[in-house]
Amino acid sequence: MKLILLRHGQSEWNLANRFTGWTDVDLSPAGRDEAVSAGRRIADAGIEPRYCFTSYLRRAIHTLQLALGEMRRDYLPVVKDWHLNERHYGALQGLDKADTAARYGDEQVHTWRRSYDVRPPALEPTDSRSPALQPMYAGLDPRSLPLTESLADTVARVRPCWEELMVPALRLYGTVLVAAHGNSLRALVMMLRGLSAEEVVSLEIPTGAPLVFELDDALKPLSHKYL
Amino acid sequence: MKLILLRHGQSEWNLANRFTGWTDVDLSPAGRDEAVSAGRRIADAGIEPRYCFTSYLRRAIHTLQLALGEMRRDYLPVVKDWHLNERHYGALQGLDKADTAARYGDEQVHTWRRSYDVRPPALEPTDSRSPALQPMYAGLDPRSLPLTESLADTVARVRPCWEELMVPALRLYGTVLVAAHGNSLRALVMMLRGLSAEEVVSLEIPTGAPLVFELDDALKPLSHKYL
Repeated sequence: MKLILLRHGQSEWNLANRFTGWTDVDLSPAGRDEAVSAGRRIADAGIEPRYCFTSYLRRAIHTLQLALGEMRRDYLPVVKDWHLNERHYGALQGLDKADTAARYGDEQVHTWRRSYDVRPPALEPTDSRSPALQPMYAGLDPRSLPLTESLADTVARVRPCWEELMVPALRLYGTVLVAAHGNSLRALVMMLRGLSAEEVVSLEIPTGAPLVFELDDALKPLSHKYL
Repeated sequence: MKLILLRHGQSEWNLANRFTGWTDVDLSPAGRDEAVSAGRRIADAGIEPRYCFTSYLRRAIHTLQLALGEMRRDYLPVVKDWHLNERHYGALQGLDKADTAARYGDEQVHTWRRSYDVRPPALEPTDSRSPALQPMYAGLDPRSLPLTESLADTVARVRPCWEELMVPALRLYGTVLVAAHGNSLRALVMMLRGLSAEEVVSLEIPTGAPLVFELDDALKPLSHKYL
């Protein structure tokens, strides 16, 4: 079995240097190019995904659509699951990273960004940025939606998606492609490789570079490499 | 309940005047514009789809993706079902329409195009255009895949998709968007409105114009109109 992990390319906010999290910004033109190039690399490697997963966020969905288009596999089934969204950055979402550092101090911001289990300040439930107030999460139980997250929280919500949806898809379809975000992909790599909290916080997954895991019958990685 | 039917816009072969059918040509730039405009019209009408269907063919899939992007509803679930593909045009697929008329005669071509139950010449199963030889239909029972179709055949294969997938989705989600093709949409309209064979062959569904059906609890149309 093969699992291909693809982190979305540059978004409109990467240039703006703002905390993004669940903010639904789109890919930049450069990010779109990264997605097409990723699809080309998967096709050139002779890898043929048969089932796909992505998040609820446009930058990941469009990355998948562009990559599939380049691979001429637009027709593949795609599951969109909010459990694969980026880590929720709480009240930092939308703030300029430099302003945030000036306000809270470099060390605090570093802790929020690089610790495993420390959460940024939470959104108020009535904040317009609160997921339960977005149309795209209407109908979901508001108590299941985060107002802030540590990386540990992200791992905890990605785990059931892995166990309940991705594992059966891998067993049934053999080759599965996941287009998602830096932290939701970190969560998957942590589970696959059995990384510690210390190891996962220092793991950097580059954008637009398909990461291919070969898995044995027990879903244990035999190898992993970037294309 | 609301059902929105959307016929894909201009494809790369519309300009070339060739029989398309199941040939997987993409939208032209004008067709992409039509799709975005259709999404805008649905959003402007205050209609909020919650579930989507499309075919296996890129021109319909991309129409749906562009319309959803314009509506900021990229995250919606999308079922891709080959039963919603365009009518299969058999051995005519890929042929120039003028050449075909010169070879078979205008009257014969008119019969193939405008009759309800006459099939064009079938593809040989070994023809490279045969669906069973395309990667996208691999894994399906080749006997279920057509080598040519009349409009009646298209209606027969669309019907189970309507009954088994769309009706439950309408009951569960209330508002459903279908991006598909001239003849698969004709099939849906025939079933919804109870049209006769004579009526359906003269029904022309324009491209890029969302057709909205309001349905009662028994799935009978209360009204239908183009946006």
